[in-house]
Amino acid sequence: MAGVKVHGIPRSACTMRVLATLLEKDVAFELVPVNLMKGEHKQPPFLALQPFGLIPVFQDEDLTLFESRAIARYVAEKYEKQSASLYGSSVAERALIEQWIEVEGQIYAPAGHPIFYQLVIGPMRGVPTDMAVVEESLVKFEKVLDIYDERLGKAPYLAGESFSLADLTHMPLTQYLMNLPKVAPAFHARKNVMAWWDKISARPAWKKVIAMSSP
Amino acid sequence: MAGVKVHGIPRSACTMRVLATLLEKDVAFELVPVNLMKGEHKQPPFLALQPFGLIPVFQDEDLTLFESRAIARYVAEKYEKQSASLYGSSVAERALIEQWIEVEGQIYAPAGHPIFYQLVIGPMRGVPTDMAVVEESLVKFEKVLDIYDERLGKAPYLAGESFSLADLTHMPLTQYLMNLPKVAPAFHARKNVMAWWDKISARPAWKKVIAMSSP
Repeated sequence: MAGVKVHGIPRSACTMRVLATLLEKDVAFELVPVNLMKGEHKQPPFLALQPFGLIPVFQDEDLTLFESRAIARYVAEKYEKQSASLYGSSVAERALIEQWIEVEGQIYAPAGHPIFYQLVIGPMRGVPTDMAVVEESLVKFEKVLDIYDERLGKAPYLAGESFSLADLTHMPLTQYLMNLPKVAPAFHARKNVMAWWDKISARPAWKKVIAMSSP
Repeated sequence: MAGVKVHGIPRSACTMRVLATLLEKDVAFELVPVNLMKGEHKQPPFLALQPFGLIPVFQDEDLTLFESRAIARYVAEKYEKQSASLYGSSVAERALIEQWIEVEGQIYAPAGHPIFYQLVIGPMRGVPTDMAVVEESLVKFEKVLDIYDERLGKAPYLAGESFSLADLTHMPLTQYLMNLPKVAPAFHARKNVMAWWDKISARPAWKKVIAMSSP
């Protein structure tokens, strides 16, 4: 099959970002599993598609792309007229969406990912959890959440009145953190963040992603 | 003056990214200095513009934006027809530009920034350099540069045949690292990376940024 392919695994947060975008836009795709346990992502056939050896990789006919946030933008742009718009309808609207996509990549994920690593990824790879890192990161992450709570008290979605890529890009890491008893209270203590999460995580596309990523 | 304002300092790498984009696109702007020594960026008037307390902040009439890579995209998009295009002329071209902007934010900067922090920012703030971190980060950064060297052996610019935001976004950190005797050899050892850097750093807009940021 030609058409759209996603090389990745549905449990990976970055793969989930791409799947959610494709499902929101009703784009048909084939998921090509990459065997990380066997190190397939570090072997020549995969490295020819993605020289850094990271999932996911996206293909649309002749175009090969990596970096999940770039793939999400491409899908939102190419299929702009199909299904709900995720990428704004003016230069100014898009600018605010881009602002919050960047906040996610540069502030939210760097604050939250170390917690996810220490409590989930590390132990999976046999690296014991360093609780000092968890505690220190959680303090930083709660400060970030305070700013999100303030923002989401002024608008229902991060970039304004509509659901967009700005919200979507936050979903994989937020889902993983929300599932951790150590981190969940930080979300539940902030009512605007919770109202936002309840709304966006109830979207049919996200429910499909969760179903795909469940063992 | 209404119009375009940049709140920041021309020595800051993220401010440089915005200035370079404005100068490339021949957009007039006013630079509004932020006194970091006095903690102006952590006080209410600045926090009302940028809740995370980080420079730069950009204003264009009624629009206030933060996150330098988002600001750069907005300027490139709004002034697409003015001066050289920085953002591609098709959905596929833009996708590759976005891919390399994301590689910069998620791979290149996280690998290179700790070196810059240890050797420049930390000491400026009275934090002594940890050479173990420098050495470890340099090993990672050189692996990233190997992939850049391979890419730039196949195309003159990161996203293909033309200079774009993909290249521009790399310039501030690259300039700072290139100036460090400890890191410069890593660049000089890779001829495709050096040919790229010689070309992009000779651009008139970049020379103006360097002049603005020199004490």
